Amino acid sequence: MTDNRLDFAKQDGLIPVIVTDFKTGQVLMLAYMNEDSYQLTLETKQMHYWSRTRQEIWHKGATSGHYQYVQSIKADCDRDTLLAAVRQEGAACHTGAYSCFFREIYPGFGKEK
Amino acid sequence: MTDNRLDFAKQDGLIPVIVTDFKTGQVLMLAYMNEDSYQLTLETKQMHYWSRTRQEIWHKGATSGHYQYVQSIKADCDRDTLLAAVRQEGAACHTGAYSCFFREIYPGFGKEK
Repeated sequence: MTDNRLDFAKQDGLIPVIVTDFKTGQVLMLAYMNEDSYQLTLETKQMHYWSRTRQEIWHKGATSGHYQYVQSIKADCDRDTLLAAVRQEGAACHTGAYSCFFREIYPGFGKEK
Repeated sequence: MTDNRLDFAKQDGLIPVIVTDFKTGQVLMLAYMNEDSYQLTLETKQMHYWSRTRQEIWHKGATSGHYQYVQSIKADCDRDTLLAAVRQEGAACHTGAYSCFFREIYPGFGKEK
């Protein structure tokens, strides 16, 4: 497993995690894990993050019911970013949207030129 | 456009950018943009990042030929993360892999338990 050991050093102990729907591949959100939340995720097979605003472990779904059940996790070439495929209960976004990425910047932006 | 103004404040002026293949939706890499590289990206329609290791603007493909042509860009609910769909010339990863996410952590990890 040496090869897959994660590099938590680059961002003050946090690693960004890209979360996708395991069936469609749609990107749902980006969040951050510290080592503790990463270990909790592997142990429980439910996504746990580090909340940068609350400065605490964030078990996704614990208050909303919108749990994320881990189907697969990959690390990138530098071992400082994760890509997780999950089964999303309810919606990933706190706004109620299924994905957090609903604000079109471009080509919306480009059209104004 | 006020609604889509990005929040560069949370990570020392940097925003993480999830990059996907515009045809398949496959996640290719994660990189970071500062405001300058973001503006360059919109102007040239080619992905420009901020290299945290070299501390300089990084025009993806300028040395490798592996340019990324922007097809769409979305921001997330908090406007502090971007999702870009690109047409990838060659490979996204410096290892030569099409995607940087080729290291299986789980269920590979889970199997060892």
